[in-house]
Formats: sequence, structure tokens, C-alpha cells
Amino acid sequence: MNIDLNADLAEGYGDWRMGDDEALLDVLSSANLACGFHAGDPTIMQRTIHRARDRGVDIGAHVGFPDRQGFGRRVMQFSTEELGALVIYQLGALTGLAHAAGARMTHMSFHGALGNLAAANSEYAEPLLRAVAAFDPSLVVLSSSSAAIETAAVAVGLTVATSFLADRAYDATGLLVPRLMPGAIIHDEDIVLARVRRLLADGSVVAHDGSVIAMPARSILVHGDTPGAVSLAHIIRAEVEAAGSAVVPLSRQAA
Amino acid sequence: MNIDLNADLAEGYGDWRMGDDEALLDVLSSANLACGFHAGDPTIMQRTIHRARDRGVDIGAHVGFPDRQGFGRRVMQFSTEELGALVIYQLGALTGLAHAAGARMTHMSFHGALGNLAAANSEYAEPLLRAVAAFDPSLVVLSSSSAAIETAAVAVGLTVATSFLADRAYDATGLLVPRLMPGAIIHDEDIVLARVRRLLADGSVVAHDGSVIAMPARSILVHGDTPGAVSLAHIIRAEVEAAGSAVVPLSRQAA
Amino acid sequence: MNIDLNADLAEGYGDWRMGDDEALLDVLSSANLACGFHAGDPTIMQRTIHRARDRGVDIGAHVGFPDRQGFGRRVMQFSTEELGALVIYQLGALTGLAHAAGARMTHMSFHGALGNLAAANSEYAEPLLRAVAAFDPSLVVLSSSSAAIETAAVAVGLTVATSFLADRAYDATGLLVPRLMPGAIIHDEDIVLARVRRLLADGSVVAHDGSVIAMPARSILVHGDTPGAVSLAHIIRAEVEAAGSAVVPLSRQAA
Amino acid sequence: MNIDLNADLAEGYGDWRMGDDEALLDVLSSANLACGFHAGDPTIMQRTIHRARDRGVDIGAHVGFPDRQGFGRRVMQFSTEELGALVIYQLGALTGLAHAAGARMTHMSFHGALGNLAAANSEYAEPLLRAVAAFDPSLVVLSSSSAAIETAAVAVGLTVATSFLADRAYDATGLLVPRLMPGAIIHDEDIVLARVRRLLADGSVVAHDGSVIAMPARSILVHGDTPGAVSLAHIIRAEVEAAGSAVVPLSRQAA
Repeated sequence: MNIDLNADLAEGYGDWRMGDDEALLDVLSSANLACGFHAGDPTIMQRTIHRARDRGVDIGAHVGFPDRQGFGRRVMQFSTEELGALVIYQLGALTGLAHAAGARMTHMSFHGALGNLAAANSEYAEPLLRAVAAFDPSLVVLSSSSAAIETAAVAVGLTVATSFLADRAYDATGLLVPRLMPGAIIHDEDIVLARVRRLLADGSVVAHDGSVIAMPARSILVHGDTPGAVSLAHIIRAEVEAAGSAVVPLSRQAA
Repeated sequence: MNIDLNADLAEGYGDWRMGDDEALLDVLSSANLACGFHAGDPTIMQRTIHRARDRGVDIGAHVGFPDRQGFGRRVMQFSTEELGALVIYQLGALTGLAHAAGARMTHMSFHGALGNLAAANSEYAEPLLRAVAAFDPSLVVLSSSSAAIETAAVAVGLTVATSFLADRAYDATGLLVPRLMPGAIIHDEDIVLARVRRLLADGSVVAHDGSVIAMPARSILVHGDTPGAVSLAHIIRAEVEAAGSAVVPLSRQAA
Repeated sequence: MNIDLNADLAEGYGDWRMGDDEALLDVLSSANLACGFHAGDPTIMQRTIHRARDRGVDIGAHVGFPDRQGFGRRVMQFSTEELGALVIYQLGALTGLAHAAGARMTHMSFHGALGNLAAANSEYAEPLLRAVAAFDPSLVVLSSSSAAIETAAVAVGLTVATSFLADRAYDATGLLVPRLMPGAIIHDEDIVLARVRRLLADGSVVAHDGSVIAMPARSILVHGDTPGAVSLAHIIRAEVEAAGSAVVPLSRQAA
Repeated sequence: MNIDLNADLAEGYGDWRMGDDEALLDVLSSANLACGFHAGDPTIMQRTIHRARDRGVDIGAHVGFPDRQGFGRRVMQFSTEELGALVIYQLGALTGLAHAAGARMTHMSFHGALGNLAAANSEYAEPLLRAVAAFDPSLVVLSSSSAAIETAAVAVGLTVATSFLADRAYDATGLLVPRLMPGAIIHDEDIVLARVRRLLADGSVVAHDGSVIAMPARSILVHGDTPGAVSLAHIIRAEVEAAGSAVVPLSRQAA
């Protein structure tokens, strides 16, 4: 089985840094780059594109609310029309930088509060994905499991690749348990690795309530901004390879 | 003779407005849209693209320094590499919004202090135009007359279209007299119209020092943010048509 | 009877303007100045302070969410502790500029979505007013009628002055009818003036549902950013004076 | 001999961090806090004020250009009048937060490009210090040695405390050698400590050209944003104490 390893990169701004992008790029197969709204600036984006390109790592846009101070983690009040415009703006900016670097932007994902909004609400998922499709219908939408996003993708003709968060609890419908709930974040490395093995073995995960749910993931998300992130990424990659699977970017997986 | 009429639009931000974009779009053939750095936001950009598209007005990117408070009119210290990245970012953002709206971005120009820097210095003009060419070599660079920009365009394989500023004085080398110098701005409407007639008649302009210089302009810039701007734009258009010329966007002029 | 006339000023940013501050300053007795978060910048704030000081107009801080693009009209997710910090920051900034200009900041009010949040929710009103009191317990809180704010003010030892919005409908509890509801904004100038007369005559207003409610206002708010704002302000002032009342800033009204 | 140890703190923004403020506060006697323009936000400023207050560390304002992306290290074009307004705005904001926390702001310093501008040019030093004096003439101006600032301080009635940068080279006039020049930054810890000893012994420093210049410093600046900063701060403090001197904040030094 082939699986992608992705992380959110380019999350600095000016002189500020978030995570060790260089070290992560050595272990990932896909990178989701902040596009200047919740984090990232043109210089950081360009530099990260060059590094990802040079390593054969897939380049995607990580699109968020225009809120640096809140790092895109606060819900903001926008009409769906306004959201469509700010999604396309960010996709265009990163595509431009990738294209000028001789690289290709292959996928996109939604960051933080914007991602939560889309994952939980069809009335947001649909116009957001419609905006993505209007920009480029060949972009793969990388998303944690969400019926709202999967339904919207079918409606607008986009492909979704499910991303598995090995260190985050799921509810029985496949949505992530909100970060502030008890047990939402799994700190025990052995449990994280057991979840990875289970995913690779039969494509399932044990939800928060003990039920077993299907998790047809094509990628595993590695967090980049927590202590020990790089080390955990290497351990997960080793676990994948020990299970006889290969880390392969989405763009080179069989559809 | 065919000539283009262009103006800088989408220069609001959020609830703030600068100029009467709707009224100007009825008289222009080309619009240069702010891209969110010195002015403009995704919603304003998208709305202006829709309106320009619906009227057959050419859409271009008006690229500036990231400085809303200074409206892009203050020189900022960036390396040429950083400047290249922020130019491509802005071009990509506007191209994305145009493409998603079923429109095409045909040209670009530099705004304010960034434009002055490029027009007067080859060491800036060359990397800036190289960035434009890396993004899209088919984009037309719309610029006031500048040897630095014209030379750089040849070097990187871009086409320049010269834009004539009917209400601004030129020096003998064809550069604009800086805005704060006495006589830099021509307020007398009759003189402005006489300059338009001369341009159409023989492609020349009388410089600040009385010398006559060649001005091979394919477009006339109309200012949008001054009192009486819309009225002046209509008068200039009438003058062009009275002279037997036609207002035609760059994209539909014979090369 | 003495009554204050107030308006929200300094709502530009850089080269952008919102309303005609100079003309309004000739008719007002109090000015609420944006403090750089939803609008305003140090230069605009300083200039407006100088003009208000020179005319004997009371100077107050108009404190909002840090959101220029949304003009402070979008609710943002902050903890009450964070809100306290951003309120004090803005109060301090304007106080500093006033003090350096030899003027005094006498009052404060909450702008837009932050004001709505405080007016309708005790759990926000209390910490927000506690922050104001920690900064300066002698500041007058200028507010549309709100039980939440009045109760909080008593709890923290602040004085509230009620501001009457002559062109906005009230519900039976004294809260403003939200701007997007039908009938929320009163466009008929004759009705606006009749409401001013009633306020001056017996301190009451007819609510949206026809009930008569007490409106113990010490000030009338004039909107600055709508067409005809300056003219309406003059007409309201004339109406006040025709009714035998005087326009007097809060700082010079008997307590 | 008593000497102050100061560092620049509160240089994060939102979720981004710069340096280990908590660890530094345990070794410093004075903290210069970013005020939200080049870095810092109300929450970070408030939290840092609380921590400094609780440790008896002097609180000062570190005032910079409004440029987060450039971290205040790029010169920006402002008139001296505009600079005065943005200095006072920042002083007021931090003073407000300090006052509301029951603390006192005792000093100020200029950050980055604004500091370099003031240190090297009387035409900037004078209006900048005049703005400080208009805000509060009792504030101590903490500055690296600069004839321009010292002269301006005398003219406007402010006290200057000279801050010694143990790891930066000086020219023969007492100005810092620009950061990008060879030898500008002294990496050898032994040399740094020898310079501290010499300063304490006879108030002098060996300049870049070998000449010995007077350095009547009342404080030593510790950099907070370089690797090993906390450790170096502790070593410098130990060196001060080994030399029989005491680390005492400016506010408690005999004038």
C-alpha cells in the first residue's frame, strides 16, 4: 500500500518561524503551504516551494482566514461569496509562485477555523469547493474525513484525498473531536503508531466512543509546530515502511 | 490611430473607497487592479474583475509594495529576490481571480514607489521584469516611458506598452517629473487636451524644459482618485474620438 | 436642557477617508476617535485631536476589534482577558496622543461588533468595563441604552452616559434593532427630528413595537459616514436649539 | 558600581515567539517591550508586563516602525511629524497596559531602523525625543551611545541612559558598526566578557579601529533572539557580580 505523508509548512511570517520546515521536508511526501493570510509571506512561500520542488515533495496550498494574529484559528464572519474570493486569491498566489519556480501546485487544504467550518457545514463546504473548482478542477482537496466536504466535492467535480490525523481523536461520524475536548489530542506515541498500523492494515480507526469507523485515507498528516514533531514524523514514516507500505506523494499514487 | 485608455482601479480596502470605479469602467478600455498589497482585497478585486469583464475592459495587475498605510507610495527596503516574490504573488492572486471569473489578465503595471524604483533604476527594473516573465512571458508591461524598463523588457523577452500621463510633466529623458516638484502636475484642462492632441498627431510631448521628445504611447493613463477624474476621463475620450482615433484596449490593438 | 452631540471620527486609514471629519467637528460637542484597530492611524488620530481641542470638542476613544478589512463590524473570537488587553491598549494610545497635545480624553465608547457584544451580553460587558476602569475610572462610558452595560458600570464604578441614535429603531428593552432588520434605520428626516423633539421634551422614544420607553440620554449620536451626514447633523443641532436646549459636551454638563 | 541589565522582550506576535522571555526575565533588571508596531500585541504586552512587575524588573517601551513583516528593521519614509505621532501612540499604549496592571513605565528605547535613524541623525533625533518629552518628560531614554540623541535629549529636557552592547563593535565616534559589516558582531564569549570587565573597570571600550573610547554606560543590553541568549545573559550577570558590581534597574540607580 502507498500512502502520502503531509504537513503544514511555510507558517512563519517575516522573521518569525513556526516549526522546522527544512527538517520536515526530508521526511514528507507532501507539503501544504500557508498562503500569506493566516501565515506565510511571499519570500517564505517561494523558499519553501524551491525546497519542496528540489526534494520531489508535492506542493499544495493551505488556505485560511486573513488573520495572522489569530493564526487562522478564529472563526471570522464572511459571506460565502467573500470566502470564495479569498480562497481563489490564495490559490492563485501560491500557484503563481510555484509556476514561476518550474513547479506545479497539485493540491489544497483548508486551515484551522476555515477547515473546521467547511468540514462540519455543507453550506460552507459547497461554496468553498465551488471556488476551488472554478480556479482549477484538477486540484486534489486534501481533507480530514468529512461528509460535508466529500459530498460537496462530488457536486462540483473535485477529487478529495482523505488525510488521517494519527494523533487526534475522531467521533463516530469521522469528524475530528474539537481540540479543546478531553482526549482530543493523543500524546502517547505508542497509541499513535498503533493507529497508523491499523490504518494501513484495514483502513479503519477506533473512534472516541469505541466504535470502529472506516478511514479510507490516502495520506497521514504530521503536525509540524509541536515539540518533537520532526522526530514523530520520522517514527511514523519508519512505521509505514516497516508495515511494508511506501511513502508516496498523492500525485504519484494510482488514483 | 487606436489608443487605449487605462486607469488604476480596485484601490479601496474593506469599506474604504478610492475613486469611482464603476463610472470609470464606462469610459476606459483597460483597468489596472490593485492586488491586495498597497490596496485592494479579494472581494473588491473579484467585483472589479466581473465589472471589467462584462464591459470588455482589459484586466491587468497593478503591483505595489506591501504597505496599505502608505498606499504603496513609500520606498521600502527589499532585496530584489524578495521583490520578485511579492510581484509574482500579486500577479498570481489576480490571475486566479480573473481565471475563475472566466476572464483573462492581459497586462501588468507597477504602482507608486515600486514603479518609480523600476522606472529609474536598471538594477531594479531587470529583476522585477524577470519575475514578471517567469510568471507569464505573454503579459504586457504597461509603463510610463522609461529606458530602464524598456531595456529590461528586451532582456527578459517581455513586451512594453508605453502609457502617457496627459496631466504630468516629463523631463527630457522621458521620465516623469516627481510629483512634489513645481509644475509636475498639470491642472489646466486645455493644456491636458492639447497634449493629448499632440500625442495623437505626431507621437510627441513637450518636456518640462521645452524640448520635444518622442512619446510612442499605446495608452493614456487617466487618474481615478482626483476630484473631477471621471469627467476628465470622458473629456479625454471625446478628444481622442474627435481627433479621428478610436479607444481600443491593448489586447485588441494591432501589435 | 443641555444635550451633547457626538459622532465617530478619525475613521480613515492612511490615504483612505470615511466621512467629513472637519465639517462634523463644527457641529459636534463630542468626538469619538477610532484608535487604530478597526480604523484610524496615529497621524489621523493626532490631527483629529488637534482639531477637536481647538474647537473645544470633547475627545473620546472609540474602541473596536482589530479588523480593518471588516471595519470592526465582524464579531471576532477573543477571550475576555484578551479583550481587556486590547481595550486598554487603544485607550492608552489615544490618551497618550491627547495628553501630548495638551488635551484630555474624557470618555470612551465601543465600536461596531464589540459594542453590540457588550450591549447585549453581561458576560462581555463586565470584563470590558472592568478593563476601562482599570485604565481610568474617571472615564465616562458613552453607550446606546443597554442594561448589560449599565449594570456592569455600577459594578466597576464607572459612569455611563446614554447616547441616543435618532435614526435607529429601538426594541422594547432599549436595545437597538439590528441594522439588517427591516425598519432598523429611519431614513425619513421628519421622523428623525420628531424623535429628537420627543427625547428633549420628556426623555422617551417610541420603540419598534409601538411601546414608549424611557431614554435618559445625555447625548445624541450623529452618523458621520452616510451621505448627507453633515447636513443632518446641522438640522438636528438646529432642532435642539429651537427646542430651547443647548448643545453642551458631556464634560461640561452638570452631572 | 551598579549597572542595569536590559533586553528587548515581547517580540512575538499572536502564536509566534521570538526569544525566551520568561527565562530572560529571571536575569534582567530592565525589559524593553515591543508595542505592537514591529512586534508585540496587547495580550503579549500585558502578559510580559505582569511578569516583569512580579519580578521587580523595570518596564520600558521599545518603539519601532509599523512593519511586522520587516520586524522594524527596514527604514520607512515618514515625515518627522508622522514619526512623532507613532512614537506617542506606542508609548501611550504600553503606559496604559502598565498602569492598568499597577505597574509603571519608566523608560523607552527606539528599535531597529528607527533607532539607527535617531542615533545617526540629529534631524530625526530631535523631533523623536521631542515627542517622547511631550508624552512624559520623566521617561528615561535608553540608547546606545549617540551624540545625536544625547544632544537632542538636552535640548528637550530628557535624561538619557547609555546602554552598552557587549557583543557589538563600536566605531571611534561611539556609534555601533552596522550589523552587516565584517566584525560588527562579536561571537567570542571571552571577548564579550572582557569588554564587560573593561566597562565596569574604567567605563571604556576598544573601538573597531583600536582606539579607546569612553562609554559611560548605566546599562548592558543582552540580546534575546539569538541562540544561547539566555545562557550568555547569565554569564554576563555572573561577570558583573564577580567584578563586585550589582545588577540594579535604572529606576533604582542613584541618578
